[in-house]
Amino acid sequence: MPGPFTLGQIVSRLGGRVAGDPQTVVRQVGSLERAAADQITFFNSRKLHTKLGETRAAAVILAPENEALTRRPRIVAENPYAYFARVSQLFNAVVSQAPGVHPSAVVSPSAKLGKGVSIGAGCVIGDEVSIGDESCLYPRVVVYRGCKIGSRVVIHAGVVIGADGFGIAREGEREAGRWVKIPQIGGVRIGDDVEIGANTTIDRGALDDTVIEEGVKLDNQVQVGHNVRIGAHSAVAGCVGIAGSADIGRHCTLGGAAMIHGHITIADHVHVSAGTLISRSLLKPGTYTGFYPFDEHEAWKRNAVQLRRLGKVKSRGEKNG
Amino acid sequence: MPGPFTLGQIVSRLGGRVAGDPQTVVRQVGSLERAAADQITFFNSRKLHTKLGETRAAAVILAPENEALTRRPRIVAENPYAYFARVSQLFNAVVSQAPGVHPSAVVSPSAKLGKGVSIGAGCVIGDEVSIGDESCLYPRVVVYRGCKIGSRVVIHAGVVIGADGFGIAREGEREAGRWVKIPQIGGVRIGDDVEIGANTTIDRGALDDTVIEEGVKLDNQVQVGHNVRIGAHSAVAGCVGIAGSADIGRHCTLGGAAMIHGHITIADHVHVSAGTLISRSLLKPGTYTGFYPFDEHEAWKRNAVQLRRLGKVKSRGEKNG
Amino acid sequence: MPGPFTLGQIVSRLGGRVAGDPQTVVRQVGSLERAAADQITFFNSRKLHTKLGETRAAAVILAPENEALTRRPRIVAENPYAYFARVSQLFNAVVSQAPGVHPSAVVSPSAKLGKGVSIGAGCVIGDEVSIGDESCLYPRVVVYRGCKIGSRVVIHAGVVIGADGFGIAREGEREAGRWVKIPQIGGVRIGDDVEIGANTTIDRGALDDTVIEEGVKLDNQVQVGHNVRIGAHSAVAGCVGIAGSADIGRHCTLGGAAMIHGHITIADHVHVSAGTLISRSLLKPGTYTGFYPFDEHEAWKRNAVQLRRLGKVKSRGEKNG
Repeated sequence: MPGPFTLGQIVSRLGGRVAGDPQTVVRQVGSLERAAADQITFFNSRKLHTKLGETRAAAVILAPENEALTRRPRIVAENPYAYFARVSQLFNAVVSQAPGVHPSAVVSPSAKLGKGVSIGAGCVIGDEVSIGDESCLYPRVVVYRGCKIGSRVVIHAGVVIGADGFGIAREGEREAGRWVKIPQIGGVRIGDDVEIGANTTIDRGALDDTVIEEGVKLDNQVQVGHNVRIGAHSAVAGCVGIAGSADIGRHCTLGGAAMIHGHITIADHVHVSAGTLISRSLLKPGTYTGFYPFDEHEAWKRNAVQLRRLGKVKSRGEKNG
Repeated sequence: MPGPFTLGQIVSRLGGRVAGDPQTVVRQVGSLERAAADQITFFNSRKLHTKLGETRAAAVILAPENEALTRRPRIVAENPYAYFARVSQLFNAVVSQAPGVHPSAVVSPSAKLGKGVSIGAGCVIGDEVSIGDESCLYPRVVVYRGCKIGSRVVIHAGVVIGADGFGIAREGEREAGRWVKIPQIGGVRIGDDVEIGANTTIDRGALDDTVIEEGVKLDNQVQVGHNVRIGAHSAVAGCVGIAGSADIGRHCTLGGAAMIHGHITIADHVHVSAGTLISRSLLKPGTYTGFYPFDEHEAWKRNAVQLRRLGKVKSRGEKNG
Repeated sequence: MPGPFTLGQIVSRLGGRVAGDPQTVVRQVGSLERAAADQITFFNSRKLHTKLGETRAAAVILAPENEALTRRPRIVAENPYAYFARVSQLFNAVVSQAPGVHPSAVVSPSAKLGKGVSIGAGCVIGDEVSIGDESCLYPRVVVYRGCKIGSRVVIHAGVVIGADGFGIAREGEREAGRWVKIPQIGGVRIGDDVEIGANTTIDRGALDDTVIEEGVKLDNQVQVGHNVRIGAHSAVAGCVGIAGSADIGRHCTLGGAAMIHGHITIADHVHVSAGTLISRSLLKPGTYTGFYPFDEHEAWKRNAVQLRRLGKVKSRGEKNG
């Protein structure tokens, strides 16, 4: 890891502007509360004004409108959070695992690995899998046969790519009902610069492929059903479930534990709030929400009773009216 | 994988009836949109009428009432989706992993494996585990000591069977409160023809066993608590959580991310919608739903404010009335 | 495993009082319904009165107020469930895996393991990790570099500790938008006597550490975001998601599939019901709930329609009023 850098060196690489001494030296990034005296931090929210006053950081990254809030050496940038990300990348590697295949990994002889690929301990890479240059699979990732993974993809531990989708057909009535499995003969295609969080699962397609386009970021414990498409540069927070054949646009964000029904279409630039279940297509960009507002238990209980009467009350009202 | 087949050969094996040329040859199954000219597809929904007109497929499986919608060679069957599943099984193996124990798997000498069992790379099979004939465990499945798995069971990567249930008792009041662990001495019993999706977890029982009956299908990332019973031929979609000692009937379906409280009973033939939390026993077959309908964020916010007032308004109303 | 014990021997170790013959011998614990004639069970709920009458157990643990409900030999204790936990620990080991490092585990030479640590098959322990005395990691646990785990910690199969948090910053507008990764340079610190359920994930901090304090119990498939703190002796049920930088107090309980927003604070002794999304800080102890009460599908649909009108109706009412 390189560094230290002066503020002047940083802006010459990343843009922005120094206010205060450009010779100020920083050796690492830190949080507003805990940064050491040789670290650089960022300020993004007026709510944290007091903490800005108390920080020990050598320098602060902030927006033009906040420039006057501190007299410490600072870097002024339009998007301080993204700027901070870039500065952190100067000091820290994005991936912490060395290239190469760990001896305990099981890689099919027919798999194709690009240059600089890193395959962690205990990974299992199936037949005919391809993985692009500089991708990193942390320990214990499983990639089933035939899946295609792009370049600079980061996959965290415990991820499973290409397991069978949940394709079953009901045969027989009532007590005689049985589930017949539909062989899942599609694959999974993952674009460049995708990151996939720990223990996330992405199923192979039933007939055609499941597709994760370039630049998509998936958090931990996300479930992606068969034949889903997630458009480029969308981000999906933890515990989200996406049912089969959902088609999600580009530049979307799905909040934690959001749930997307199968066979629906979500337009580009749609934002789904945490805990929200999307039960039909969303063809217009915007933010969509639907979770039950919590309350103290007794108050919730009273509300829930009234809520369950709403339909009945109205029906009566409509008859009377 | 066998094939090609003529439509005549298919109906002689699977029943149904050919309309058009029975000598039509098909080599694989495909989707309505992307089937190649030597593939057979299925048609199940009038909404897809236009796509039916545009398909390149050699033949289509459809229901009697839809027979006249196309002039392509076709197979007419009462349940086209199940029929399609059977046709796909003619062309494709249900399981893609060869029998045998992968050298990187760790199998206890006291485990008993049936004939034709397949144990994938990195699996860990505990003491006294038994696995029935022709079952397939994909890579990195863990089965804790003593669990019993039936025949023709398919278990996808990352599944954990038989970890300790969440059995803890609180001891001491307020600040002195501590959790005391209850040793989990029950096991897990899994019937024949069960399929279990990637990264799903099924806990061992506290005292008696956790039971998954024959023919049950579990999708990915399902959590099954200790001492749960899931009745035969039920199907559970992704991200569902079933709390301890819930007793779920036969032929039930649980939609994605549904949640089942502990210690409740669900009758046979109950269907729970996606995203629904079931908080008390359901003794009558039927479909049960309970998720907050989403809306544009601002509209949801206005609704949520009114929703939280419902209980108060009514209480006032009742006093006045 | 030791035993058998007489009731007299048990109370001399664990306290409480015998009613009936103190020479009664018990060899194992069992459930009220299925206990064998040489087992001891517990009775905790008046609803199970009939089952108490029918049990074959040699002895019953119960509270003083229930002492007269049976004439079987019994142990009278203030907290029968916790007492039962202690009795079960007399007969059964809390951990079922022997100390030592399984030969198939991959442990960095720079990792520090305490005395009596057990590392299961297929585990991967990163550089500079430390694990305290008598901790047990079941098979296929991954601990990324630098994480610190206390003593007597139990970690179930498939857990991932220390994967990167979901730290991404958006750079560029509209179609040009891209996610820039923020290197996650914090770690994870896990206190003594913590237990972590199967396939749970705990992310490393972005800058500072993610912290799980002593005595915390996490069930299966819990997701803990970066820089979360969970206070001592809290318990988190299955499928819960905790977003980044949430600060959860001591002695809290989170019900199954509860969701906690990021950057909020939850006081000590807060109880969140299953299926509830907590969207703002909770500074007062108590029980908080917010899930949509389920109903038969048609009734729910009628209610949902009315619910969505609530905001509009009221707005009109306010204009008129």
